[in-house]
Amino acid sequence: MSESRETVSSKDTEEVIMEATFRALSKHGYTDLRMRDIGEEMDLTRQVIHYHFDGKYDLLSAFLEYVIDQYEGSVEVDETDDPRAELDARIDQCLFGPEFEEFGHWERMKVYHELYTHAQNDGDHREIFDEHYDRVRGSIVDVVEDGIEQGVFEPVDAERMGQLITDVIHAARGRRMALGHTDAPEEARAAIDDFVLSSLYADD
Amino acid sequence: MSESRETVSSKDTEEVIMEATFRALSKHGYTDLRMRDIGEEMDLTRQVIHYHFDGKYDLLSAFLEYVIDQYEGSVEVDETDDPRAELDARIDQCLFGPEFEEFGHWERMKVYHELYTHAQNDGDHREIFDEHYDRVRGSIVDVVEDGIEQGVFEPVDAERMGQLITDVIHAARGRRMALGHTDAPEEARAAIDDFVLSSLYADD
Repeated sequence: MSESRETVSSKDTEEVIMEATFRALSKHGYTDLRMRDIGEEMDLTRQVIHYHFDGKYDLLSAFLEYVIDQYEGSVEVDETDDPRAELDARIDQCLFGPEFEEFGHWERMKVYHELYTHAQNDGDHREIFDEHYDRVRGSIVDVVEDGIEQGVFEPVDAERMGQLITDVIHAARGRRMALGHTDAPEEARAAIDDFVLSSLYADD
Repeated sequence: MSESRETVSSKDTEEVIMEATFRALSKHGYTDLRMRDIGEEMDLTRQVIHYHFDGKYDLLSAFLEYVIDQYEGSVEVDETDDPRAELDARIDQCLFGPEFEEFGHWERMKVYHELYTHAQNDGDHREIFDEHYDRVRGSIVDVVEDGIEQGVFEPVDAERMGQLITDVIHAARGRRMALGHTDAPEEARAAIDDFVLSSLYADD
């Protein structure tokens, strides 16, 4: 952090706090996280956290939206006229992740999945995740539907396939992190190709 | 709990503690769980916990093994000569769960998935989950291989298919709990039938 205490704007300050939260969560995990751990990860005084956020829960809710916005904003897939290429690109982005500057995809995913599991106890977080999940699944369903419309894909149940692919992606990422299966995303990609997408390309 | 403090054996006591841990975890979640919450869920004095377990971590490790043993011990699938029926039964058991006396499948799964996510910070728990995961996946791979050997199934990559099915099951259960998608297991079952198992039954 190079910002001096005098010159940071409110927006910058929030970003500084969010990135400090990231580092603190990566180190301590959700369970053991204390506000002071976040304070220790930034150059600003800890009081600015209390100025911007109404306690740990409020901060973590804002953080969850920040992580999801950042993730969704960084997905770069050209909407081409080739549904097959677009579908492949979308699956790869979800499985292997876009690159970020300071922290990699997996550090971000680790925090994401931890908050996801905790959402079962938390209506607000659940809603944020649910909307994100809908957008991810929707982007896969859309391209499958486009392909069917163009006659490039076989006429499958696009909703059902989009859901299946989204579930496989989520499980493979979770398995890589929780169980340390580093090949999980590659395995999932191969399994999606062999057993799921094959239904789209019946003539191949 | 009807056991009196005088008559319970050591094994019974551990079971009483385990079931109290279950109730406490269901109420408070992993993050906020304190030893005293477990004590409040049982008729025995809290001291017996400290007598049997060396702190919260030791207790939660024992608890994890208890939950997994109970889950695996309750899966009842006849190993028949019909790989198709056995595969269906195994998938259904994993998705919809065997029935338990006091707590249902989903209450148990909720605790299981919460501990699963925390395993990323914990080598011991990771190993316990990893071995369990291997057994579940292995039981699906075995029946697919049996079917291929008998000429009932098409010759697919059984390892890859077993992994894919295990991932889908895990994701659907997680989604039901974290996001409240109550239909997730049914959706997953339909998607597995339509898009995954269809590769086994090429002639249908």
